[in-house]
Amino acid sequence: MKVITRFMLPFLLPFLFSTSLLPAEEGMWTFDNPPVKLIQQRYGFTPAAQWLEHVRLSSVRFNDGGSGSFISPTGLVLTNHHVAMGQLQKMSSEKKDYVSDGFYARTPAEEVKSPDLELNVLISMENVSARVQGAVRPGMSQEEALQARKAEMARIEKESLDKTGLRSDVVSLYQGGEYWLYRYKKYTDVRLVFAPEKQAAFFGGDPDNFTYPRYCLDMAVFRAYENGKPVKSAHFLKWNAKGAADGELVFAAGNPGHSDRLRTTAQLDTLRDFYYPYALNSLKRRVVVLRRYAAQGTEQARQTTDDVYGLENAVKAYEGEYQGLRNPQVIAKKTAEEAEFRKKITASLAWQREYGGAWDAILEAEKKYRENFKQVRLRQVRGSEMAGVATTIVQYVAEVAKPDAQRLDGYHESQLESLRFQLFSSAPFYPAMEEALLANSLQESLEGLGAGDPFLQAALDGRTPEAAAKQALDGTRVVDAAFRKSLIEGGEKAVAASADPLIHFARRIDPVLRARLKWYEDNVESVETAAGEKIGAARFAVYGKSLYPDGTFTLRLTYGSVKGYAMNGTIAPPRTTLYGLYDRSEGFDHKPPFDLTPRFIQGRERLNLAAPLNFVATLDVVGGNSGSPVINRDAELVGLVFDGNIESLVGNFVFNEENNRAVMVHPAAMLEALRKLYGAAPLAEEIEGRK
Amino acid sequence: MKVITRFMLPFLLPFLFSTSLLPAEEGMWTFDNPPVKLIQQRYGFTPAAQWLEHVRLSSVRFNDGGSGSFISPTGLVLTNHHVAMGQLQKMSSEKKDYVSDGFYARTPAEEVKSPDLELNVLISMENVSARVQGAVRPGMSQEEALQARKAEMARIEKESLDKTGLRSDVVSLYQGGEYWLYRYKKYTDVRLVFAPEKQAAFFGGDPDNFTYPRYCLDMAVFRAYENGKPVKSAHFLKWNAKGAADGELVFAAGNPGHSDRLRTTAQLDTLRDFYYPYALNSLKRRVVVLRRYAAQGTEQARQTTDDVYGLENAVKAYEGEYQGLRNPQVIAKKTAEEAEFRKKITASLAWQREYGGAWDAILEAEKKYRENFKQVRLRQVRGSEMAGVATTIVQYVAEVAKPDAQRLDGYHESQLESLRFQLFSSAPFYPAMEEALLANSLQESLEGLGAGDPFLQAALDGRTPEAAAKQALDGTRVVDAAFRKSLIEGGEKAVAASADPLIHFARRIDPVLRARLKWYEDNVESVETAAGEKIGAARFAVYGKSLYPDGTFTLRLTYGSVKGYAMNGTIAPPRTTLYGLYDRSEGFDHKPPFDLTPRFIQGRERLNLAAPLNFVATLDVVGGNSGSPVINRDAELVGLVFDGNIESLVGNFVFNEENNRAVMVHPAAMLEALRKLYGAAPLAEEIEGRK
Repeated sequence: MKVITRFMLPFLLPFLFSTSLLPAEEGMWTFDNPPVKLIQQRYGFTPAAQWLEHVRLSSVRFNDGGSGSFISPTGLVLTNHHVAMGQLQKMSSEKKDYVSDGFYARTPAEEVKSPDLELNVLISMENVSARVQGAVRPGMSQEEALQARKAEMARIEKESLDKTGLRSDVVSLYQGGEYWLYRYKKYTDVRLVFAPEKQAAFFGGDPDNFTYPRYCLDMAVFRAYENGKPVKSAHFLKWNAKGAADGELVFAAGNPGHSDRLRTTAQLDTLRDFYYPYALNSLKRRVVVLRRYAAQGTEQARQTTDDVYGLENAVKAYEGEYQGLRNPQVIAKKTAEEAEFRKKITASLAWQREYGGAWDAILEAEKKYRENFKQVRLRQVRGSEMAGVATTIVQYVAEVAKPDAQRLDGYHESQLESLRFQLFSSAPFYPAMEEALLANSLQESLEGLGAGDPFLQAALDGRTPEAAAKQALDGTRVVDAAFRKSLIEGGEKAVAASADPLIHFARRIDPVLRARLKWYEDNVESVETAAGEKIGAARFAVYGKSLYPDGTFTLRLTYGSVKGYAMNGTIAPPRTTLYGLYDRSEGFDHKPPFDLTPRFIQGRERLNLAAPLNFVATLDVVGGNSGSPVINRDAELVGLVFDGNIESLVGNFVFNEENNRAVMVHPAAMLEALRKLYGAAPLAEEIEGRK
Repeated sequence: MKVITRFMLPFLLPFLFSTSLLPAEEGMWTFDNPPVKLIQQRYGFTPAAQWLEHVRLSSVRFNDGGSGSFISPTGLVLTNHHVAMGQLQKMSSEKKDYVSDGFYARTPAEEVKSPDLELNVLISMENVSARVQGAVRPGMSQEEALQARKAEMARIEKESLDKTGLRSDVVSLYQGGEYWLYRYKKYTDVRLVFAPEKQAAFFGGDPDNFTYPRYCLDMAVFRAYENGKPVKSAHFLKWNAKGAADGELVFAAGNPGHSDRLRTTAQLDTLRDFYYPYALNSLKRRVVVLRRYAAQGTEQARQTTDDVYGLENAVKAYEGEYQGLRNPQVIAKKTAEEAEFRKKITASLAWQREYGGAWDAILEAEKKYRENFKQVRLRQVRGSEMAGVATTIVQYVAEVAKPDAQRLDGYHESQLESLRFQLFSSAPFYPAMEEALLANSLQESLEGLGAGDPFLQAALDGRTPEAAAKQALDGTRVVDAAFRKSLIEGGEKAVAASADPLIHFARRIDPVLRARLKWYEDNVESVETAAGEKIGAARFAVYGKSLYPDGTFTLRLTYGSVKGYAMNGTIAPPRTTLYGLYDRSEGFDHKPPFDLTPRFIQGRERLNLAAPLNFVATLDVVGGNSGSPVINRDAELVGLVFDGNIESLVGNFVFNEENNRAVMVHPAAMLEALRKLYGAAPLAEEIEGRK
């Protein structure tokens, strides 16, 4: 079952923890603390409270890893094709491929319900730092302190849920410097209205991914329903077909998934020397497995589409980040900034006493982590969604039997509804593909840990990875949502009694997974949470609240302007046009991934080729921001974030305004394509508010 | 007066002095030693002797710094607009601007004669190493040896000229490893047939220069005449409008001007630490001066066009080269290669005795050079063409009075005809612009050397640089070709008696220029020529003749294939199309240098936008290759070299096949533009051989 992890986010990017004044254009700001002064200084514009509220309530989080926005009073939600792709894949079957063929619902009746898409709208934010941090009592061990914090967070969430009925998440910001309660309106009846063919959305494929100039119609339109009827969205962004001019101030509102800008150098060293090498190796193995599986036939290839996209996307993002971390200038910058920060702390006796030890505490924890990195990383199943679901079921029934405060993360009372929504999804599974992935994952763990490791003993039970995977998946009923439901409802007893081979497999590995998690919490997470809180507080003491927190897949506002940049010896233009799409396809003799779909070939004469297709701005976005609306001062939609350029990948650690760019789809091209290529003029009219 | 120097060459590029087998696709090979085995191995094609002869005799050297080819039996010669630009500038006046407006001669009568363009076709090559090297007798000092070599070269050239009537140049190849006598057929009646507007030829301007993807119609067509009639060119390249397919074997024949691939590391250190910093500073100063001058008005701006282009082109090329030299990997590679080479020499007692000392000799000479670098560099006038012409006149009359063997380089008997052709050019001078450039040059020397330096004492004579420049240029008749001719014909007496202020200025500085040159010859050139010959011989001993010499602005053959490359996170396409031109212009809101000329705006509907415009191949070209024909196995013209990509600039020192690319104009776009935009269908027909 999918959890928002780094590599599942559509794309990943940047921050500069500047020791002095932040350079403008930087930052993924929370809506409670927008950088109004900076914006006013640079652009003479101050977003009013009402403006901010309107933008926030028009913004939508796609819970399977992206962002979006309401664009009509009739519940239309705009996002990227690549954000929608997970649902498109789940809607598809051997007979109908929504991913490759695209889709347009001419009438509401034709709209297709997403199997397990949950949208969130951020309704309110409340600072609960005092409660969470206050839960830690003097004399508690660090392990106890961590549990106390978690218990308090679960309590806050449950109270809020009970009181408001809204999804309630406590979020740790500034590495624990603050804790906030975010309440969301949830939509789980979300129907597909329009998606282009993947080739039109993702023209240029993996080579062009994370680069610019680009020529992608990376859009999709859903409609949110409530009680079987389209949502009457009071807040939505008005469409501006002209887009934004070169140099114009623009904003993006979205959910940056993750960034590492506030990490200590000790943590960065671990990322560079352990995390990235292991992760890249893992991802690349999985691509090989899926490509081999896909080579078996058209249907097998279709099954892998979304996963291959996600994996290749992650490989490219990670390689950019990894390269950034190995750049001596980046490391030198980070080291200098940390030294400067620590020097300021040392200069005050009180600060030094309160915060001074935090960095070394993290360093010590990281050292332990590095020593055990292989075990933490490889004592789990990666890549097989079915094995993940089975493990979740086994843990679910055990956890819900406990008091809320004592449960594992992910199984707290406030989290169960969304979790069940995912678990009971009608999306299809492909056991043959899962088997290949599971075998590969076990093989990778075996190579790294050896057969004597407790994880392998539990998972393999003396068999080869292939045999273990085959046995676990042969005849399992986990593919059946009703079966999953029966286990969840049957509780511990039903799960314990199940003879299902995959449930059996999950039961065997569950103790090892728990032990692994406990080791990590006791030795790393507990230490770094406490130390992180201290560093967060120290940062506020030294720099005030002139900084923004790292990405946490919660709603943020970023600002900047439409702007080309120095690239490869010349200048990248502020925007591209439909001309460029045809140029690039011709330039490669229309060979994949630079081929045009029949619609684009046949419809060329009808198009205004000068229509802007993609554009760039100095917006500070990272993975999770995909699908974010780009808006002007009048809160009109002037673009749709879908990527960052190659120079933005180092932005996971440092933001460089010179060449870090967000890449957007232009509203003009979206309308042009809807009207002239997809026969979707009614949708264009609805989007433009003419219907 | 223009001499072929590094920065006057249209663009500059690459070599890898590989210690083992050369990677294929590399090399600027002389026509006597083409790498037939490598080509056969990789492409299964062997250029026959007849093929080589045909290509050589179809190839043309543009003596003001580029290459070209005969493309019809009626004397049509194809080159780049930027190679033609010097002549276009010289043809232009306040009333008619051939550079900006372009030109097409509908009838032969309308063709415009170039003021001082000399074309050369390489008729024969003869190895004269034994004679030149044999001129050095035992017991000669190094200074005497240098003079003996030069005297012998002058003798060979004079004998050849007298015998054949052909232009005869002795060329030093492999840093003196070989000397060859090259005989050329000369054409000095060369008329302009067609040139597009500079903006169409140089779309994207300085930003796009030396980059790819590109969208430039960088072409110009001349016609060579003899005895007032079009040359019946027996050898010419047949036009192939389809161009070359992706992956297809192609060749370029042209005149790479300069490269530093065989330099010793000591020489590279001097380039990096002295040459480039000084040269870049000089060039940038001059750009500033010209921009300030151009700001005075449209006519002033027009006067600077070609020079500003040349200077900015040089700055960009030099910055790429300088960056390459500061890249630790490049230096490490060069150091390792040299160490490997020297180790092989040391391993043989005979080789060590014969060649072993050469590297240290060069190092010692370079040390002296570095100590005196500032003097050598700044004791001369740079940037003022009129001051250069005056100096040449003063030296000419003195030199021709001496026996040929004792003259300064450039004034040998065999060189005088071409020199006079240049000196008596009808091209206009712009004294106000010259004054600004001369003042700047003197100011730069003053800042570097101080007023007490003999050069400044001679040049300034107690005045400020501005005053000295003003006095030298005020009322000078050097602008008048007849005056220049009268001085040359009047000889030493006429020059000594002349009261012309610029001639007076030249007479004053001449002794310093001579002393500076003598110091350089005695201390650097003589040592390095002797040592270079040894290293050249050592290289043949170790590696045989499997290498090619550095660029010497003589005819070379390079081979490769049409091929995209990894760029900026993605792949650059093998070719671009007319679509891309419109895309890039739209993307920048048509702002200069991305604006389209009226012809391209108004003619858009008529064009086949899918026509290939530019393309890339793994051809190893450097500055001077501009205008080189690209040909296929059938010796048909399939492209026109006009640039290298940004990654090719480091190629002045090392060639990297991965991403070093030559950039070409595609024959399809040339015909498309001639027919549909320029009303030049008759020329297109003539080019295609249909007329």
